[in-house]
Amino acid sequence: MASPDKGVWMTEWLTPHESHSHHFKQFIVQTETRFQKAQVADTHSFGRCLVLDGEMQSAQNDEFIYHESLVHPALLMHPRPRQVLIMGGGEGATTREVLKHRSVEKCLMVDIDAEVVRFCKQHMPSWHQGSFQNPRSQVLIGDARKFVEKTENTFDVIISDLPTPNEPGPAYKLYTLEFYRKLLKRLNPDGLLVVQAGSGSLLQIKQHAVLHNTLKHSFRNVAPYYAYIPSFDVPWAFVVCGGENCRPLELSPKRIDTLIRERIKGPLSFYDGLCHAGLFGTPKHIRKLLNKEKRLITNHHPIYFYK
Amino acid sequence: MASPDKGVWMTEWLTPHESHSHHFKQFIVQTETRFQKAQVADTHSFGRCLVLDGEMQSAQNDEFIYHESLVHPALLMHPRPRQVLIMGGGEGATTREVLKHRSVEKCLMVDIDAEVVRFCKQHMPSWHQGSFQNPRSQVLIGDARKFVEKTENTFDVIISDLPTPNEPGPAYKLYTLEFYRKLLKRLNPDGLLVVQAGSGSLLQIKQHAVLHNTLKHSFRNVAPYYAYIPSFDVPWAFVVCGGENCRPLELSPKRIDTLIRERIKGPLSFYDGLCHAGLFGTPKHIRKLLNKEKRLITNHHPIYFYK
Amino acid sequence: MASPDKGVWMTEWLTPHESHSHHFKQFIVQTETRFQKAQVADTHSFGRCLVLDGEMQSAQNDEFIYHESLVHPALLMHPRPRQVLIMGGGEGATTREVLKHRSVEKCLMVDIDAEVVRFCKQHMPSWHQGSFQNPRSQVLIGDARKFVEKTENTFDVIISDLPTPNEPGPAYKLYTLEFYRKLLKRLNPDGLLVVQAGSGSLLQIKQHAVLHNTLKHSFRNVAPYYAYIPSFDVPWAFVVCGGENCRPLELSPKRIDTLIRERIKGPLSFYDGLCHAGLFGTPKHIRKLLNKEKRLITNHHPIYFYK
Amino acid sequence: MASPDKGVWMTEWLTPHESHSHHFKQFIVQTETRFQKAQVADTHSFGRCLVLDGEMQSAQNDEFIYHESLVHPALLMHPRPRQVLIMGGGEGATTREVLKHRSVEKCLMVDIDAEVVRFCKQHMPSWHQGSFQNPRSQVLIGDARKFVEKTENTFDVIISDLPTPNEPGPAYKLYTLEFYRKLLKRLNPDGLLVVQAGSGSLLQIKQHAVLHNTLKHSFRNVAPYYAYIPSFDVPWAFVVCGGENCRPLELSPKRIDTLIRERIKGPLSFYDGLCHAGLFGTPKHIRKLLNKEKRLITNHHPIYFYK
Repeated sequence: MASPDKGVWMTEWLTPHESHSHHFKQFIVQTETRFQKAQVADTHSFGRCLVLDGEMQSAQNDEFIYHESLVHPALLMHPRPRQVLIMGGGEGATTREVLKHRSVEKCLMVDIDAEVVRFCKQHMPSWHQGSFQNPRSQVLIGDARKFVEKTENTFDVIISDLPTPNEPGPAYKLYTLEFYRKLLKRLNPDGLLVVQAGSGSLLQIKQHAVLHNTLKHSFRNVAPYYAYIPSFDVPWAFVVCGGENCRPLELSPKRIDTLIRERIKGPLSFYDGLCHAGLFGTPKHIRKLLNKEKRLITNHHPIYFYK
Repeated sequence: MASPDKGVWMTEWLTPHESHSHHFKQFIVQTETRFQKAQVADTHSFGRCLVLDGEMQSAQNDEFIYHESLVHPALLMHPRPRQVLIMGGGEGATTREVLKHRSVEKCLMVDIDAEVVRFCKQHMPSWHQGSFQNPRSQVLIGDARKFVEKTENTFDVIISDLPTPNEPGPAYKLYTLEFYRKLLKRLNPDGLLVVQAGSGSLLQIKQHAVLHNTLKHSFRNVAPYYAYIPSFDVPWAFVVCGGENCRPLELSPKRIDTLIRERIKGPLSFYDGLCHAGLFGTPKHIRKLLNKEKRLITNHHPIYFYK
Repeated sequence: MASPDKGVWMTEWLTPHESHSHHFKQFIVQTETRFQKAQVADTHSFGRCLVLDGEMQSAQNDEFIYHESLVHPALLMHPRPRQVLIMGGGEGATTREVLKHRSVEKCLMVDIDAEVVRFCKQHMPSWHQGSFQNPRSQVLIGDARKFVEKTENTFDVIISDLPTPNEPGPAYKLYTLEFYRKLLKRLNPDGLLVVQAGSGSLLQIKQHAVLHNTLKHSFRNVAPYYAYIPSFDVPWAFVVCGGENCRPLELSPKRIDTLIRERIKGPLSFYDGLCHAGLFGTPKHIRKLLNKEKRLITNHHPIYFYK
Repeated sequence: MASPDKGVWMTEWLTPHESHSHHFKQFIVQTETRFQKAQVADTHSFGRCLVLDGEMQSAQNDEFIYHESLVHPALLMHPRPRQVLIMGGGEGATTREVLKHRSVEKCLMVDIDAEVVRFCKQHMPSWHQGSFQNPRSQVLIGDARKFVEKTENTFDVIISDLPTPNEPGPAYKLYTLEFYRKLLKRLNPDGLLVVQAGSGSLLQIKQHAVLHNTLKHSFRNVAPYYAYIPSFDVPWAFVVCGGENCRPLELSPKRIDTLIRERIKGPLSFYDGLCHAGLFGTPKHIRKLLNKEKRLITNHHPIYFYK
């Protein structure tokens, strides 16, 4: 191995006993908003990176894995998604993937942090790729929880692309039984919710399991799935939730490939039929661990991730 | 997060730009053999660990993922494996998994390092679980390459559980086109080879891709697969190789579950039908990367991993 | 720079914002006593090291700096030290240095941890160099505080070679105003106390300053001094305390060199006349910082170091 | 200890076996000039920091230690310094300290990197404190070696505040026997040269020892001295060189304090008479190590630091 570069490293502690460090090639810019501290840096390994409150959020070279995983399974499981709501999603890459679906007529993104949205727009163009200019895309700055409580609109797919709460801030009430029941009312028949659901690493999986159990108590069918994200160093967890059509294991690789051809415009890099089987092919010990979890997240018993 | 313990950490560099560190709770024992330096320590996160030449080799809490991934797909794809050869595998856990298959009559392990075998036997009992005492198990101390060149025996399944070479040592000629062609001759009709095939992390995948290509030039059918191992922090790669019956994607989860019930005695923790689909559900970008690789490993053009 | 070795590193946090890491070449042995966890390892940089409770305690290649600094200034400032008491000092190197003084008739070491004394005796022979066999040396296993409270003996020099307390354990009452007043009564006329007094790094100096102030309230004259210890990565602090003869700045390099020739048998590696001037040549900002400190350590208001 | 902040750390390897890490509170700005990469960041421990090519160069909270050590001993040893040359010194703090000497009529700074000078001027005002506006100060952008070769001016004190070369770049010919002999010719009678002379840590001292030996072969009297710089984590080395008046050990603390009162305007934070004794009070083992060094740096046998 060549000598590690001296200089600036970003360190993340998975637990007090495990840490991962990434070398920064070049620091680009930072800002401190009302809600969080945002930094953009170029890394050797993953290209440009967004770091929120000291945590790797999204990296240029592998964000496609996260965003394709988040968006396409749910949208393809829906018979014909027209109205999509994204909660969070400030970088614009979730919108970018949603807009690849020809059936989508409107993709509304509600993000609380105007400044981070602007910041990403300027410094991370490869994420949004101009999606915010698309006439089918709409951005609303505001608290997603208040929006959900007030709106009378309903959606075919709702995508929760929100940070997992690690303290009592704006995000924690967006991860509760009460909130998921409200979301259910904002789904059309056949509607699906997909949630980015935390780290799926065995060292950090407890919170994901509680979140999965909370979703299981809110929706008829829920399906957890996991994609390994190199810049996170762990398999990342997602949960798709809904009714009768929320049965990802019944979709064969061939069927997924057909759906992609029919309904998606523009190339995918990560997701296809075989990858779909891989995403939902959860190992036995993870399923056992999820099944044993009894705890629920409620407004009065919130949980905080990775403290 | 609680405060990280001061004290002893083990650091692994994936590249000069990425490192992972594990906290050691307690150091247990170490030895320096003719071939390598072996250390055993207890970690907070993964229980007891074996470290060979400064690299995490196997951890008590997740070795089941590695060893079930290595053994069961190949053995279940074979119609009736009786004779099994393990090259390497000193900890005894590969033998342990092989012996769970009722059809296996003889499991021969050939490992070069008698001292490491003894060391693991004494300090890592949860790996072998007494497998070396099983009358169907046989251990031969010696160079697997010389054994393969001299033996006239043939096998139903050969398992390559050898360290990936990172310098011109005893291991590098066990990862070449020439050697794989010799292995092919030691396989019975319907025989399969499965190879632990290095890190599948995008940051380190080059060597795995070259190895995969080398195997593709040696066998009719090859199928790569990946299992995330928490103590390695990456998806680990395997390749199963053979003839007509080497078609893991044609085995449905239901079929795998039936085969497990019929042929395996003793519980599995990681692997079952759904997990099989997950293992072989390789994402699109990884398949593309493997397909583009043109380089071959030969005796005259060896490769070294993770230097 | 050559590539850093992968493998086992020991990390020490000076503060939550600063860390130092040392590479371990080889782990030797460890034990857990009633009082502490002791580990011995060989490092690349400093030879064999003793680690107590995860903190670098003493390293083969530079312990001479610590032990010569601790012992010789006080013993040479005393007109004729005959009776010496060491509190702590389990490795035996403090005794080794004391015994180099021809005038010393008896060197009594009181250490609480019999097991660590035995452990060091066996695994760290270059520290004690057989000092415990010297007829002028005596070892008593027990609590130094209780010993001081009960003994009716008095000493010419008392050496406090105790760990600085970082929690309410056996050590914290050995660093208080009350205890120092008891020590004063166990000193003969002309007697001196010398205290290892914590890290002198600006990042950690607060506790040292409070300790220095506590000693200033207990003795007529006190003189702080600092020696850089490479394996600690910081200048280490000592305070020598006494009456009229505690005036290290009045001893010229030439005078110290004469005293060494007359009174010390056996070679010194670190300390001589010029070095003495360096030890006590405290920079202006450190003196200012010590002078401003008003806090005192008492039994009811103890302090803990480096938490 | 409180939990270490996740986030951005700067790591420096002293050797492949030792590393130090500093936490960055906030990144400020960076630039890449023809000669080097410069970054400015705010740290928790040391305030604002300048990082050149990944190495900590200067920190707001302790730069006074470095700059007072570099400037005042040499200037006070000279009977009446009027003309001062600084080679390097881009931050402006060396100029700031020189201008405190009432006798100085002209302080010429020759630095190769116009961009870094501008960069420091803008982002690190507490270093220069407006010194560049002082009518006695003059800045010349250019290669100090070429300047020295061409100028016919002579100086009372020359200060080498240049980076130690770690590769064959513009700096390495500024650290050779040939260059020092040229510098000697640019000194007035009674003139002194002072050189920042690398890390004095035992782990890195080899290069300093060779540099010290090279200076010993170029000047009648040379005196090494060391100041512990917290943000460097090591004692930093300097060497003052000259003729009969280069005898720092003959200046008593009292004499230094008198000289400071008479000749320096403005407060010093680190340096005074007692501190002077500390700076030059080199321990015995360091002196021994310097005396044994026989190697010389020449244009044909350069050395590189900390590779």
